[in-house]
Amino acid sequence: MPQFLSTIEPGFEAAFAHLLSLKREDSPDVDAAVAAIIAEVRARGDAALVELTERFDRVRLTPETLRIPEEEIDALCAAVPPADRQALELAAARIRAYHERQMPEDETWTDDLGATLGWRWTPVSAAGLYVPGGLASYPSSVLMNAVPAKVAGVKRLAVTVPTPDGVANPLVLLACRIAGVDEVFRIGGAQAVAALAYGTESVRPVDKITGPGNAYVAAAKRRVFGKVGIDMIAGPSEILVIADGDNDPDFVALDLLSQAEHDESAQSILVTTDAAFGRAVAQAVERHLETLPRAAIAGASWRDFGAVVVVRSLDEAVEIADRIAAEHLEILTADPEALAARIQHAGAIFLGPWTPEAIGDYIGGPNHVLPTARTARFSSGLSVMDFLKRTTLSRMTPEALRALGPAAETLAQAERLEAHGLSVRARLDRLNR
Amino acid sequence: MPQFLSTIEPGFEAAFAHLLSLKREDSPDVDAAVAAIIAEVRARGDAALVELTERFDRVRLTPETLRIPEEEIDALCAAVPPADRQALELAAARIRAYHERQMPEDETWTDDLGATLGWRWTPVSAAGLYVPGGLASYPSSVLMNAVPAKVAGVKRLAVTVPTPDGVANPLVLLACRIAGVDEVFRIGGAQAVAALAYGTESVRPVDKITGPGNAYVAAAKRRVFGKVGIDMIAGPSEILVIADGDNDPDFVALDLLSQAEHDESAQSILVTTDAAFGRAVAQAVERHLETLPRAAIAGASWRDFGAVVVVRSLDEAVEIADRIAAEHLEILTADPEALAARIQHAGAIFLGPWTPEAIGDYIGGPNHVLPTARTARFSSGLSVMDFLKRTTLSRMTPEALRALGPAAETLAQAERLEAHGLSVRARLDRLNR
Repeated sequence: MPQFLSTIEPGFEAAFAHLLSLKREDSPDVDAAVAAIIAEVRARGDAALVELTERFDRVRLTPETLRIPEEEIDALCAAVPPADRQALELAAARIRAYHERQMPEDETWTDDLGATLGWRWTPVSAAGLYVPGGLASYPSSVLMNAVPAKVAGVKRLAVTVPTPDGVANPLVLLACRIAGVDEVFRIGGAQAVAALAYGTESVRPVDKITGPGNAYVAAAKRRVFGKVGIDMIAGPSEILVIADGDNDPDFVALDLLSQAEHDESAQSILVTTDAAFGRAVAQAVERHLETLPRAAIAGASWRDFGAVVVVRSLDEAVEIADRIAAEHLEILTADPEALAARIQHAGAIFLGPWTPEAIGDYIGGPNHVLPTARTARFSSGLSVMDFLKRTTLSRMTPEALRALGPAAETLAQAERLEAHGLSVRARLDRLNR
Repeated sequence: MPQFLSTIEPGFEAAFAHLLSLKREDSPDVDAAVAAIIAEVRARGDAALVELTERFDRVRLTPETLRIPEEEIDALCAAVPPADRQALELAAARIRAYHERQMPEDETWTDDLGATLGWRWTPVSAAGLYVPGGLASYPSSVLMNAVPAKVAGVKRLAVTVPTPDGVANPLVLLACRIAGVDEVFRIGGAQAVAALAYGTESVRPVDKITGPGNAYVAAAKRRVFGKVGIDMIAGPSEILVIADGDNDPDFVALDLLSQAEHDESAQSILVTTDAAFGRAVAQAVERHLETLPRAAIAGASWRDFGAVVVVRSLDEAVEIADRIAAEHLEILTADPEALAARIQHAGAIFLGPWTPEAIGDYIGGPNHVLPTARTARFSSGLSVMDFLKRTTLSRMTPEALRALGPAAETLAQAERLEAHGLSVRARLDRLNR
């Protein structure tokens, strides 16, 4: 059973603070091992990739077979059932339509002094997408990373995906195809991240690396950050449901379980104004756990990190939601939009009874790569912006320089940066000649 | 003398690759010391801050005097000469006007299935701005960090600035005032970063930390990243000037020196189509070095990392500029806008002869916190976006769920996430009842 908390109880604040502080992740210290792997790949390139792939994935490759040839991808894609293909294509189209709306505009304007100012957006030239192998090899994640990159205009998009024992996931490869991925390499772990960041004979380096991975991949991304850009380091998934008593307990139970089944460290929390409804949801969760295929994982997550919080009012629910700053927030109340407008911190919000979070994982359109572990207080989900950067532009006229130059000179002198001041003064002197 | 390179010489590629690979920074390994300082502050709060400030800044504080009282700030601000005050106010107004244009729009729309989608931007609740003490204590940097935070809507903005030997910089405090900073603490180093990230009895924690600092500050920011957001870790400053022969060598020399004077590790590069002009600029640099107050720093930077690159055409200049991906790029050619439009990677571009980079440092309007060390390939300068985050929104109608639910269910099954599929299926069954 999960924790039951109620804001009317005197011990609430302590219990809630404890819930927030639960350490939900075992991050084994793999940093030394990862540093050694990166050094290997930098020193020996393809040869290191071949050796490490044999050691970790039990696959014998050569420099020529590190990349999966187009014909092999074609053959694997052809084996995907039509219903799966259509679902992926629909998902890709909806994700593309949503992310196309995120494309920011270039701007230039002339201010009252005649200075021209503005900015321009350009895409990252090359991006690398890490895709996990095995159980967590999700075609939906390929779409969520690759489609925004391509919408942003990234010219070269390389995927690395390990193929343990030589087994590739056809749906992952089909998702690469649909999203327009340019190159797929059958490598994984820290060695794949190192190859993307530093390049080898067969893998050209990229400028930005995104995508989820295990502790080794996360540590490698942290290490190469600065040499290349990275997206966030994602933690275990989370859902917060705010529901009044006027809901189907079964819907809410399944939504809570759909996060819990990801990972034993996932966290599912229900905040409700109705204690009886909270109990009904908890009972429905237990009932589903009897038959759910991933009951061992989901049950552990729900038992260790799940919670039902009973609040006196929706005002309290808003306050609690902001303190949790959840990755996923479902709002199941009479006027969900009004409540959503008052929430400050959440990765993604799902409104009303017909928007289970799973729709957002696959097919809604918004990105499912979202800030976890309360980082929604300061960061956003993946978007086209992760594959774009902004260059600012300025052009002074003689008149604008006359108007602004003296103040720049004053500040340069105050900061004792003489050459800064002189670079302005030399021009003002020329204009005044 | 700096390096002279020419694209017509056979050794160019090797020499240019060497120039790009120069390691321009000594980053002493302070990580263990920083970890210990952070642990101290987390364990003992204010008491640790008081002790560490006495040790590193030679200032005796108490928990009550960690924060600089308003009256003390008032008194220090009153001592600032009116010309300096006016220059700061003009700078703040221009930075504010520029950054107000960056505010992104919220969006919601209804798609062809009746689903409502969109996103909403909200500010970070509390931000901390690290301001260095001593020589690199720049009031302009306070404005460049604090103004965008306030434009974004950050409610609480706390500044930490060490006051070595008890000496505060009145211009820094005035810049805090003008920018609307809410709290100023006279602490610095890793201990200030730890206090901002974890909080103490007197310093409430923030959600995001920005601002430049020494190796200790940079290491501390890396360590607290994840607990709070951080801006980039800035390296030494850089300028790239692209100029044809139709320019004043003196202007260009001073622009190169205005980066070189920041730091012995700064890098100033001239790319020109005119070899004779390149030599004239180098001579002008030497001449100014004879009288420049910071000649020791600027001279070392120019000698060790400076370069003049002669190219056959502006096409070659564009290619070289993209490989350098400079923090600051000046374009001094007949049609600078046309050339700028072809550049893919640069932090900020300054167009034409009347836009010395120093204008951008102080008063142009765009931000002067910019990506260094080739990171302009994948990142942008500071902006209001650094203090905002996006929450995505979705609402399905019964019709939209009927249209999209089956595909979501198919993908959930393909990924073996049963509860995901069930959360959709339960609702479809209800609708079909």
